[in-house]
Amino acid sequence: MARKHFFLLAVTSLLICSAVADWNILHQRKKNNVVSGSGLKKYCESWRINVELNNIRGFEVVPQECIGYIGKYMSSSQYKADCERAIEECEVYLSSCCDSVKGGEGKDAWIFDVDDTLLSTVPYFKSHGFGGKKLNLTSLEGWMENCKAPALDPTLRLFHKIKGRGFKIFLISTRRESLRDATVDNLIKVGYHGWSGLILRDLSDENRRVQHYKAEARQKLVKEGHNIWGIVGDQWSSFDGNPKAKRTFKLPNSLYYVS
Amino acid sequence: MARKHFFLLAVTSLLICSAVADWNILHQRKKNNVVSGSGLKKYCESWRINVELNNIRGFEVVPQECIGYIGKYMSSSQYKADCERAIEECEVYLSSCCDSVKGGEGKDAWIFDVDDTLLSTVPYFKSHGFGGKKLNLTSLEGWMENCKAPALDPTLRLFHKIKGRGFKIFLISTRRESLRDATVDNLIKVGYHGWSGLILRDLSDENRRVQHYKAEARQKLVKEGHNIWGIVGDQWSSFDGNPKAKRTFKLPNSLYYVS
Repeated sequence: MARKHFFLLAVTSLLICSAVADWNILHQRKKNNVVSGSGLKKYCESWRINVELNNIRGFEVVPQECIGYIGKYMSSSQYKADCERAIEECEVYLSSCCDSVKGGEGKDAWIFDVDDTLLSTVPYFKSHGFGGKKLNLTSLEGWMENCKAPALDPTLRLFHKIKGRGFKIFLISTRRESLRDATVDNLIKVGYHGWSGLILRDLSDENRRVQHYKAEARQKLVKEGHNIWGIVGDQWSSFDGNPKAKRTFKLPNSLYYVS
Repeated sequence: MARKHFFLLAVTSLLICSAVADWNILHQRKKNNVVSGSGLKKYCESWRINVELNNIRGFEVVPQECIGYIGKYMSSSQYKADCERAIEECEVYLSSCCDSVKGGEGKDAWIFDVDDTLLSTVPYFKSHGFGGKKLNLTSLEGWMENCKAPALDPTLRLFHKIKGRGFKIFLISTRRESLRDATVDNLIKVGYHGWSGLILRDLSDENRRVQHYKAEARQKLVKEGHNIWGIVGDQWSSFDGNPKAKRTFKLPNSLYYVS
């Protein structure tokens, strides 16, 4: 009886051991597929990098099969690290670019985008399909009216450094004039203050390409005698066209495209 | 005796089983660290994406701690997929941009970089520290003289599609005039033929910024009456300055920076 008992124990142990090993191998294969091996991951990563390279333009939605991948990236510590690094590069530039600014006549300017540069819309997209559905402007503007967009922390730090160096800060946004009060409230609430201009789109700007609307806003600043030392934004359309800034800093954003 | 024997077997099985499970967990943790978890991976990925975003400029070497990461990416199927996608976007543009070209007067132009656009220098960097050492131009040019650079396959396909559509193709490279014969030989050997101009740097161009040298080459083409429909290159300095092309397509490259 005892011999049978031990034999059973031995066989059971071996079976369990073998099953555990198999499960581990299977689990590891599955993990490898998800983390580094799958064609879908490679495809979505290529989509994302080509958005950031400005090769893929004018997309209206994130490809259906990449919503999970893009959502994961935009909620990840990698996205945060990528933004942090972009802002650090801006700080490196700031520390060496502009010695003349201290003695300037208040004509040294820096430009920021608002959404996904100063404020994050990631919480909105998190609860609205992560860019996989065509943008519902009414719904997004409703969310903006609630003034609950958090700050992007590295940009908040940079904003105050730039202000401390004596630059005038101008915010040029694709948000509409009707959102002015909510935008100011939201910015103040999360720690931004002391900008010199908040330029929003009025009715006549709404049917124009964003690139032209933003370039014209810069043109006006230059005509007033400003030197534009830098632009920080999350869309290529914030930098294109003339006049140019001396440097531009692009934050990653693969949730939507503004053309 | 037999009872002892089976007991020993049972205990040994359990010990092996436990050791295997431990090893699997350890191995999996190590893999996760390397593949997705480590701070180094995150740091190097942020470095790479900020190079591609044109936020990190003018670097002379890949950061020492990222040589492995960058080398792995530039040798990976992900790099190939990223290039393939960039070229596919170029093909999408080509299929809709330029209906007028067929009836044109031979003034419709397309520009390509040479290195890491038409030809790959990855094999050179693979055997020379993957961008972690300051570039030894003599050594690189010696390698170029051997004409063994392989084609980037998607670009080779695109090159012939563009030619087939009736565009004139101009190659504007930072390679020196002294490399003309070797460059032509290498290009022909891997399948490129039928370009309309190969513009290389002569002595007077060597001390100028690449952006200015390339913009001036485009200026000359425009003065001759050409329309520049597109530029495909791996460096932002291939696109900057005026005149601009109607579209540009940036291939990834985090091995070196040409300013």
